[in-house]
Amino acid sequence: MPAVTALTAPSAHAPLTRGTVYRRDPGPHDVQIEIRWAGICHSDIHTVRGDWGPVPYPLTVGHEIAGVVSAIGDQVTAYAVGDRVGVGCMVGSCRECENCRNGFEQHCRNGMLDTYNGKLPDGAVTQGGYSRSIVVDENYVLRIPENLPFEKTAPLLCAGITTYSPLRQWGAGPGKRVAIVGMGGLGHMGVKLAHAMGAEVTVLSQTLSKKEDGLRLGADHYHATGDPQTFAALRDAFDIILNTVSVPIDHNEYLRLLRFDGVMVSVGVPPEPASLDSMTLFDNRRIYTGSKIGGIEATQEMLDFCGEHGIVPEVEIIGADEVTRAWENVLASKVRYRYVIDISTLS
Amino acid sequence: MPAVTALTAPSAHAPLTRGTVYRRDPGPHDVQIEIRWAGICHSDIHTVRGDWGPVPYPLTVGHEIAGVVSAIGDQVTAYAVGDRVGVGCMVGSCRECENCRNGFEQHCRNGMLDTYNGKLPDGAVTQGGYSRSIVVDENYVLRIPENLPFEKTAPLLCAGITTYSPLRQWGAGPGKRVAIVGMGGLGHMGVKLAHAMGAEVTVLSQTLSKKEDGLRLGADHYHATGDPQTFAALRDAFDIILNTVSVPIDHNEYLRLLRFDGVMVSVGVPPEPASLDSMTLFDNRRIYTGSKIGGIEATQEMLDFCGEHGIVPEVEIIGADEVTRAWENVLASKVRYRYVIDISTLS
Repeated sequence: MPAVTALTAPSAHAPLTRGTVYRRDPGPHDVQIEIRWAGICHSDIHTVRGDWGPVPYPLTVGHEIAGVVSAIGDQVTAYAVGDRVGVGCMVGSCRECENCRNGFEQHCRNGMLDTYNGKLPDGAVTQGGYSRSIVVDENYVLRIPENLPFEKTAPLLCAGITTYSPLRQWGAGPGKRVAIVGMGGLGHMGVKLAHAMGAEVTVLSQTLSKKEDGLRLGADHYHATGDPQTFAALRDAFDIILNTVSVPIDHNEYLRLLRFDGVMVSVGVPPEPASLDSMTLFDNRRIYTGSKIGGIEATQEMLDFCGEHGIVPEVEIIGADEVTRAWENVLASKVRYRYVIDISTLS
Repeated sequence: MPAVTALTAPSAHAPLTRGTVYRRDPGPHDVQIEIRWAGICHSDIHTVRGDWGPVPYPLTVGHEIAGVVSAIGDQVTAYAVGDRVGVGCMVGSCRECENCRNGFEQHCRNGMLDTYNGKLPDGAVTQGGYSRSIVVDENYVLRIPENLPFEKTAPLLCAGITTYSPLRQWGAGPGKRVAIVGMGGLGHMGVKLAHAMGAEVTVLSQTLSKKEDGLRLGADHYHATGDPQTFAALRDAFDIILNTVSVPIDHNEYLRLLRFDGVMVSVGVPPEPASLDSMTLFDNRRIYTGSKIGGIEATQEMLDFCGEHGIVPEVEIIGADEVTRAWENVLASKVRYRYVIDISTLS
């Protein structure tokens, strides 16, 4: 069982330190991946901080993984040594329940296996992508298009699929007006993807501070939600509102911006329940729902779509020693728009 | 301007009394209808009680109207004197906005004109169906199939379309599992309609007191929501939950009964907002929405569907002098399942 260098969280608030995780020897259906790039997702921080429940420290997080295949099990035919591949938020599921069979492994009724902090049958805990390598069941490995700049692709595995999946599900495309709430790691991907799908894209952000970026990345319009005029001016304006922020918002204010049969999809997980007025939903037959990452087939479709359209996130590449500072910037909303760790600096 | 005998509410809580409403002479596009049957909807009581805002008394309510055409304007071609027709919750809309043009007049962006307590441009107030006759724009008149027992058809115009529309919208049919929450005037129509559409139908009612009725009307299963076992046993069980009750419920308990991509539709208007947990919605990609009656085209489609399948509500026919007692029974949930006023007794 190979020992692998990793960045590990020793406790909820201590800085990450260099440590070791143990990877299994590749089984017949496993793919061993030399990790090259690892994206930093806000979920990594929430998990380590214990915001989502108790954590068995030390823990290595990271579920936006881009790397190169370094070994394959003897039954693996879809991947070969040297292939560019990715791993996202899950590394397993039961493969037998209705949702798994339908390609929605993230909704496995027996529980998907998280890439990190997931519980294995033997009680061991999965360890994530802030590490030199990982071994993953081939069914949870994705192919990264060769034409994309490799160092920018890791965040597609979480931020990309999390926004792509609901945009596709609800028909973002020509003639559809899409609002993206929030201009962060998820939101800026939502802008790029919805624009590439052919939709008319509006960003709704707290202020206009990122307006120039938003328009450059593909938004047609950009409004500040801090300006109450915005909500009056955009009444009945959108077919889809993709809510990427996790802070509490007044859902009814946003719902009133939906046209007939319009849908508001939340992909963040705010701690408070959403409080929805019946009359606001009745009017225009509005819909409210959530969306959680995406299935494996949809994730590959998203990567191929990004390859075709040349879409990658806006990233800042950092070394392993800069992660503590980067996490602080993520918490302070200072990241533009995703940090990616150059794993070659982790030794 | 013909004076017409009507049951009118003199104030919020006084019994209804015989009074007079004034109907316009039929214009070129109007249909004059001799009302034969008028259903009693809970909304009638809410409105008169002032639950939904101030009311200009005296007011005549009633928006489940079945009658016979007694005169037509000279431009009317779709209806002839003697035809069986119906009028539901609306008698006008702008006909120009996007929603009107798409057949969703109930979502008219300039406001649909309610059948009663609606404000006309000249400040007059529309008066409803607890009256001997009414004059309505032909665009808001529906044709009632001749094969249905006439005296039972009035409630289709509100209770029928209110449940039919969301069941159709969300694909109730063979292979779909539909739960109907509540076994009242709306709920029992939901059971009949969903069953006729080919769905597997479950009633979720507070107690099992109406179980025999539910199974007789087409339900395959019947569960008491007062029994906590129900929510454990039916986890992930339904594609569609049609919530017909207006009392506050724990929405999350019901949402957890939805399968992947399942939808919960509320057609009642509870005073409290719905409080939805993000994680409950994310799991299984669940959807929450509302639905408000239905457009004119959909209402005609519903009536034709009921004609084909021989569907009418379970009704108790009452005379004009029994309405006060009937309202008390509606408030006490003692009606089985809709009262219909025999308007010939109103003289």
